[in-house]
Amino acid sequence: MIEFETIIKQNKNLGDYKLLTPGPLTTTNTVKNEMLFDRCTWDDDYKKITQKIRKQLLQVATVSEENYTAVLIQGSGSFGVEAVLSTVISNKDKCLIISNGAYGERIVEMAKRGKINYELYSCEYDTIPNFNEIRRILKDDEYEFITHIVMVHCETTTGILNPIEEIAKVAKEYGKTLIVDAMSSFGGIEIDVKGLGIDYLVSSANKCIQGVPGFSFVIADKTKLSRCKENSRSLCLDLYEQWITMEKDGKWRYTSPTHVVAAFSKALDELFEEGGVRSRYIRYSENNRLLREKLKDIGIFSYIKEEFQSPIITTFVFPYDNFNFNEFYNYVKDRGFVLYPGKLTDVDTFRIGNIGEIYEEDIHILCDVIKSYVMGRK
Amino acid sequence: MIEFETIIKQNKNLGDYKLLTPGPLTTTNTVKNEMLFDRCTWDDDYKKITQKIRKQLLQVATVSEENYTAVLIQGSGSFGVEAVLSTVISNKDKCLIISNGAYGERIVEMAKRGKINYELYSCEYDTIPNFNEIRRILKDDEYEFITHIVMVHCETTTGILNPIEEIAKVAKEYGKTLIVDAMSSFGGIEIDVKGLGIDYLVSSANKCIQGVPGFSFVIADKTKLSRCKENSRSLCLDLYEQWITMEKDGKWRYTSPTHVVAAFSKALDELFEEGGVRSRYIRYSENNRLLREKLKDIGIFSYIKEEFQSPIITTFVFPYDNFNFNEFYNYVKDRGFVLYPGKLTDVDTFRIGNIGEIYEEDIHILCDVIKSYVMGRK
Repeated sequence: MIEFETIIKQNKNLGDYKLLTPGPLTTTNTVKNEMLFDRCTWDDDYKKITQKIRKQLLQVATVSEENYTAVLIQGSGSFGVEAVLSTVISNKDKCLIISNGAYGERIVEMAKRGKINYELYSCEYDTIPNFNEIRRILKDDEYEFITHIVMVHCETTTGILNPIEEIAKVAKEYGKTLIVDAMSSFGGIEIDVKGLGIDYLVSSANKCIQGVPGFSFVIADKTKLSRCKENSRSLCLDLYEQWITMEKDGKWRYTSPTHVVAAFSKALDELFEEGGVRSRYIRYSENNRLLREKLKDIGIFSYIKEEFQSPIITTFVFPYDNFNFNEFYNYVKDRGFVLYPGKLTDVDTFRIGNIGEIYEEDIHILCDVIKSYVMGRK
Repeated sequence: MIEFETIIKQNKNLGDYKLLTPGPLTTTNTVKNEMLFDRCTWDDDYKKITQKIRKQLLQVATVSEENYTAVLIQGSGSFGVEAVLSTVISNKDKCLIISNGAYGERIVEMAKRGKINYELYSCEYDTIPNFNEIRRILKDDEYEFITHIVMVHCETTTGILNPIEEIAKVAKEYGKTLIVDAMSSFGGIEIDVKGLGIDYLVSSANKCIQGVPGFSFVIADKTKLSRCKENSRSLCLDLYEQWITMEKDGKWRYTSPTHVVAAFSKALDELFEEGGVRSRYIRYSENNRLLREKLKDIGIFSYIKEEFQSPIITTFVFPYDNFNFNEFYNYVKDRGFVLYPGKLTDVDTFRIGNIGEIYEEDIHILCDVIKSYVMGRK
């Protein structure tokens, strides 16, 4: 193990810190260096980058070009989610939204704004959806008004990992179109998109593929998407038109974030170099296991039960009554790590992400820093 | 004048080219270097950057914080335009869209998608809107259904500069809310936002302020925007909510493109260092005058009359019958400059932008390259 003070010094010397957040996260320098060149959106060299990315995303999703397509959309991950909802759920359709966190609730907000018919199944933030109840809702839907099911894979609100396998099975059984917000899991957790029958999967550039923020992307069933012409309530968020234009030669419909796109292309190459999603999953899982174990040793416990815990981000309950998060945050930041605040209203928590360019040794150092803070204050 | 072959070699050595496009454009290395650091969206240091940008944008617009606000929105410039339309024109309102190019037509598409009531006034691509006709439309609008006027300042379709002064005067006279798409002009052409009574002005990071692409921004009349709660047809494109959240402490509502935002902050500083909008306007105008003059000398003429020509981008008519644009484009690109294709359907044209890190000497070299191509082919 590299010495504690040395690493902290290294981070500080760089004027840098490591992000222990659910993304935007710490990327490699090689990824960031791709942004040192101004590319022309219309130029063939640039359009080829977009096409390469789209091919690679299908590889990450382990799906074929014959059945699926990858569409990139400007804006944050939420823009991708809203583009899917707005484009693929027509006025005649209705969706069942499964929610156990802030991102599920955001989907409800999107449905309201777009005047999309929906039914909500929600459960407590620390609980996974009960697929028997979901089956019951579908069974009770006598006239089959429900056409789509929407759910979040990893809820970064808490760090809970929802069981897409089980819900996908129910969706398939009832012939529903399945939309999965896999924002913070895609690239870091293996997802058998075709096997599970996921029709639309949304993620973003700055999550487990370890790019920088600026766009989102959708892995879409081509047959289903091809039926969605003129559905979209928004021009910019029209996933269908975005696909049709991009499909021609890789030119985005409107100005693309060229630097961010080039960085993402490099990040995808580095994902494959690392050994693909499986290797990254192992690294993240190991980071997460170590983090929870070491913090538990000093009396900081995770909010989510181990069996539901994602390998992406963990919510920790404040270790003692007068725990001052701001002071703690600055103490840790001064030592080279940036943490994330909690997002729960009823329990005082903070969050630590362990994705991005974060390795076992970072977790060791971080936990030592946290320990030194807690020991000094308790 | 620096020697022709030397500069070309310099560009080629860098593996680089200069963008002679309407943006994304060539930025400084200092702007791009800001992207070599991964920032945390939640951190105070980062939120301060957003607040600084918002203040500086109001300075560029020469408006006070008392009456106006600057709101940043993820996505390309079009996302900003659609956010304004979707948020500020309610179901009870109606807008008059003034169009003489592809960007005006895009606004019509946005209105259609959002089911926004509109009336279209359009004129030929090489003609400026006739404000007497616009006055007549408003006069004929007996029941005052029209509440908003939307127009594009510089239409990069052709490079024509529309007379906002005249139209703003008519808008004011009739008490209409004025929305100006100043995408490719803001920061490069002085616009008296308050004096003209512009209520919403939209532009983007990768235009005359010389940042990299990834977000757009809106300069908005605070009193008017404050009345737009719950109007938006889209959650992500809700300008009102974006403002309310950003106003608190600079945190964006959803994940922001941190690297692009940091680069933009630097670009704004460099705009002020250059002497502000006035100085930049002079540089761009001089670039443009020189470009048109030198190309005219070799028989390449601009499509738009000199009196309507913007100092941003110029459309040139193909100089001879069998002019091969692709060959020409590659010839010029091999020598370090990337041009832009035309966007007209009835006339064969190409476009040259002269904004970004482009100086007189670049224009000289470029024109020599073009001359050497044309002389060799004619």
